[in-house]
Amino acid sequence: MAFPCLDAMETRSETLKASRSSSGPEPSYTSGATQSYHCRDPLELDWGGVLPEFTVAYETWGGMNADRSNVILLHTGLSASSHAHSTAANPQPGWWERFIGPGAPLDTDKYHVVCTNVLGGCYGSTGPGSIDPANGERYATRFPVLTMQDMVRAQFRLLDGLGVDRLHASVGSSMGGMQSLAAGVLFPSRVGRIASVSGCARSHPYSIAMRHTQRQVLMMDPNWNRGFYYGKVPPHAGMKLAREIATVTYRSGPEWEQRFGRRRADPSKPPALCPDFLIETYLDHAGEKWCLNYDPNSLLYVSKAMDLFDLGRENQVAAQARRAARQRGIRAGTCTPADSQCSLTLPATPYEEQPDVQVNAEDPVGPSSSRPPHDLVLGLSPVRDIPTLVMGVASDILFPAWQQREVAEALRLAGNRNVTHMELSEEMSLFGHDTFLLDLEHVGGNLRMFLN
Amino acid sequence: MAFPCLDAMETRSETLKASRSSSGPEPSYTSGATQSYHCRDPLELDWGGVLPEFTVAYETWGGMNADRSNVILLHTGLSASSHAHSTAANPQPGWWERFIGPGAPLDTDKYHVVCTNVLGGCYGSTGPGSIDPANGERYATRFPVLTMQDMVRAQFRLLDGLGVDRLHASVGSSMGGMQSLAAGVLFPSRVGRIASVSGCARSHPYSIAMRHTQRQVLMMDPNWNRGFYYGKVPPHAGMKLAREIATVTYRSGPEWEQRFGRRRADPSKPPALCPDFLIETYLDHAGEKWCLNYDPNSLLYVSKAMDLFDLGRENQVAAQARRAARQRGIRAGTCTPADSQCSLTLPATPYEEQPDVQVNAEDPVGPSSSRPPHDLVLGLSPVRDIPTLVMGVASDILFPAWQQREVAEALRLAGNRNVTHMELSEEMSLFGHDTFLLDLEHVGGNLRMFLN
Repeated sequence: MAFPCLDAMETRSETLKASRSSSGPEPSYTSGATQSYHCRDPLELDWGGVLPEFTVAYETWGGMNADRSNVILLHTGLSASSHAHSTAANPQPGWWERFIGPGAPLDTDKYHVVCTNVLGGCYGSTGPGSIDPANGERYATRFPVLTMQDMVRAQFRLLDGLGVDRLHASVGSSMGGMQSLAAGVLFPSRVGRIASVSGCARSHPYSIAMRHTQRQVLMMDPNWNRGFYYGKVPPHAGMKLAREIATVTYRSGPEWEQRFGRRRADPSKPPALCPDFLIETYLDHAGEKWCLNYDPNSLLYVSKAMDLFDLGRENQVAAQARRAARQRGIRAGTCTPADSQCSLTLPATPYEEQPDVQVNAEDPVGPSSSRPPHDLVLGLSPVRDIPTLVMGVASDILFPAWQQREVAEALRLAGNRNVTHMELSEEMSLFGHDTFLLDLEHVGGNLRMFLN
Repeated sequence: MAFPCLDAMETRSETLKASRSSSGPEPSYTSGATQSYHCRDPLELDWGGVLPEFTVAYETWGGMNADRSNVILLHTGLSASSHAHSTAANPQPGWWERFIGPGAPLDTDKYHVVCTNVLGGCYGSTGPGSIDPANGERYATRFPVLTMQDMVRAQFRLLDGLGVDRLHASVGSSMGGMQSLAAGVLFPSRVGRIASVSGCARSHPYSIAMRHTQRQVLMMDPNWNRGFYYGKVPPHAGMKLAREIATVTYRSGPEWEQRFGRRRADPSKPPALCPDFLIETYLDHAGEKWCLNYDPNSLLYVSKAMDLFDLGRENQVAAQARRAARQRGIRAGTCTPADSQCSLTLPATPYEEQPDVQVNAEDPVGPSSSRPPHDLVLGLSPVRDIPTLVMGVASDILFPAWQQREVAEALRLAGNRNVTHMELSEEMSLFGHDTFLLDLEHVGGNLRMFLN
């Protein structure tokens, strides 16, 4: 009796252990050469934490014009790097290689495209694997809780550094579709257009649930060691499983029915508990490719930031209040930017459900209601004058099409008369959430028309 | 900084370790008192294994009539026990308490309802936690691979023992909906009616993928120990996570949007990586309740049997050939029922995708095709004369409604003129796959009409 999938996992642990002890700390995670902007001004974060200084790694394509008015800021998905397209310094194809270039939807003959690595990630921007200037050690899980808005504020510090006052457009898909909207809400006077593809204005509980299981799987890996695995064997088994679960949410059942059906990897063999059906070997391979190429703590922080995403007015007001209190503390000298007592991180006691938490009966939510909650309409009102393209995909289970309908409807109710909403039917795409990576014709085509 | 969810896991491991060493082996898993049927004739299994003898634990409600013609065989879901309704010996409410009883959809004034614990499970029927008569030790992962049809054959051995020649009806939901169909295919002359609720005729890759991630999470728990954890600390952390993933597939996003929305367990606290949003505490609680109440090896074997389910003709013919070869070996004396060399279990080498595995272009599959594959129509032809009720739920993501449409259509194409197909819309139920446990009005009501 054999479990080749467990043998492979144990072999990897042994190999990593041997290489760590022979060659010192592991190499940093990287997606290749980037440019880098270091900001020495503190960044106050939505949940009360602060980064005394930080770095944003980024890449660019196309030339900036004289008045710096042709800049498109491109926001990435959770696991993607700034490497959206090949560069001279890094000729590897990027994740949107066909969408960027001369004559492409993001046309580098016209636009200067900037793509950043998000704060909290592991590809050169400050994240949990970075050195905390307060003590010279890696942050690990001492890193403060982040939000999408914190990541966007860091991006606009970079734009400040580049001397870019106003974007031609803020463009993003998936998590980037959250950020492209958030950029408009935070800096309405600095954003010319918004394109949000397969994104949303607030995370819903099903996607929180799917990310929860990924985080739990990772945190349960003994090698995670509560975040302090740097220089040791990383939680590669948990990362592999987390990626497998994520992959289930990125595509659609109908696509897999056509692509894999019920075929087994080797029909001549009896069934196995390790990967056996083709769909299983596909998931296994997706996990294998990923498990050593992304910092596990970055996955936790960025995934959590996605859960926390809510452009409703109430949430924005609460975050502003926390940031203002933090700034007052710093100015009054009762907190310093490097003071971990003042920088909210993670709680010391478990949570109990509070009996007074109740549904607001006046705000029916979800797909059974055709009207977005009033709080969300208020929250999106800063974007009322920005032309916005919202695209969704009917086969997407992670950011289901009702979420993009909600964004478009909330924008219209907020008074925006320039909202374009597109929904790709199952006939147009069976690729689910991943459609934005693959569909040059519809996603690329609509984007091109909207940007010009 | 604190991770209360990890503290809880570690505390449970310590407690279990202490109790194992102080009081000997753990108590058996149980759902309460059952009746028991022990069969001393070997059961040849679809994948070539054999059980030299086996036990079926079961419960019954209502009286059997004189000619034993009023028996309804009720098949369970994956994790459910035979305890569908309270009994004198076990007054705890069952999982279908309101669906069974005098005047209920399964009317005990008219019918004798029999519900078994499946072969491979852990509630009294033979499974991987049982003692192997060949060596006096627990089977663990030496247990042979099972199929739905193997489980059904064991149920019919029980019916033989009870002197029941023909069922009034074979009824089941979820995995039980697979088995209720399989009973008709295997024993068409012994089944009067079939009711299959939220089931299917063949597992599709999305549900295989979801079960794959659950099995992997469990197998990666170091306490699983390749199945040999009996008498030691069981893989409770893996079981908890597997249940959390399963729970995501049992309900629907829209239901959670209404029930939990974006509420946090304690909004006065900063965000946490351990459960924080209400949906997370809900999943956590579902995992906690389950993690010590079901045998992890049973989960693996029964879950795998669901993946292998395919009532297509080709698969049936191949299984018959394997069983026949096994029987010839036993008769010729080249194999004994207890001979593990003859009993196929799990493979010794990893699988590689075979280049000659190809899609049959003449059999378009999946929801994009309105016509079920011809192989499935042939496979269901034994059921052509049995009145059949097929029910599905539009909000089900695990056994999506197209699968029940496929069953109904394949039955009709096979020549069955007594097929009733019902699909509960999202307006009727947002409870997804779990609808069959909750919806007395529609599921119970349709069942009652069909059975009478």
